[in-house]
Amino acid sequence: MAKLDPALDMAFAALSDPTRRRILERLARGPATVSELHAVHDMSLPSFTAHLKKLESAGLITSKKEGRVRSCALSPEAFAPVQDWLAEQRALWQGRLDRFDAYVTQISEERKP
Amino acid sequence: MAKLDPALDMAFAALSDPTRRRILERLARGPATVSELHAVHDMSLPSFTAHLKKLESAGLITSKKEGRVRSCALSPEAFAPVQDWLAEQRALWQGRLDRFDAYVTQISEERKP
Repeated sequence: MAKLDPALDMAFAALSDPTRRRILERLARGPATVSELHAVHDMSLPSFTAHLKKLESAGLITSKKEGRVRSCALSPEAFAPVQDWLAEQRALWQGRLDRFDAYVTQISEERKP
Repeated sequence: MAKLDPALDMAFAALSDPTRRRILERLARGPATVSELHAVHDMSLPSFTAHLKKLESAGLITSKKEGRVRSCALSPEAFAPVQDWLAEQRALWQGRLDRFDAYVTQISEERKP
């Protein structure tokens, strides 16, 4: 069975859309209201809100309502599982490349006259 | 408009499934035949092949057929746009935290008797 990690599934799925990545890029610079975020997207508010909900379900952003204004903030720590998984893969294939390099070096040393 | 980057969309979408991540984890250790990859997954071959196709469409793996045997290999360079995008986000929010730290330090310096 595949190792189940729904948090990782949801984070990667949330990151697979250009509108959602653009929202995250904006929030990386600081919190913003839903209106401010929506203003630069050529999209209906309900469609835009669905993107925000997907980011919030994945834990990548949080939102809170004060009076009639809802504002959003990035949750940088939610990127950690994604970055950890990618770093593990890099370590695996880098290890394989290093062993290959060592092998090539050994072969060429052995062939020296 | 959101910055269009279909390669990034497809890579993140390909990574959002635990079966596909497990295939990548296996291929990070070295190439394998489709039969070898499929053997450890409790899933029909057509369903499994669909996952391989999604990884190949996203550019994360390559496959080649020799005789009747198809084998797959990881394309580590295809992870670069994903890692670059995440690194950019980290730089943005880290910059914001650093500026906040500097501000707090300045305030506390000013309050010293």
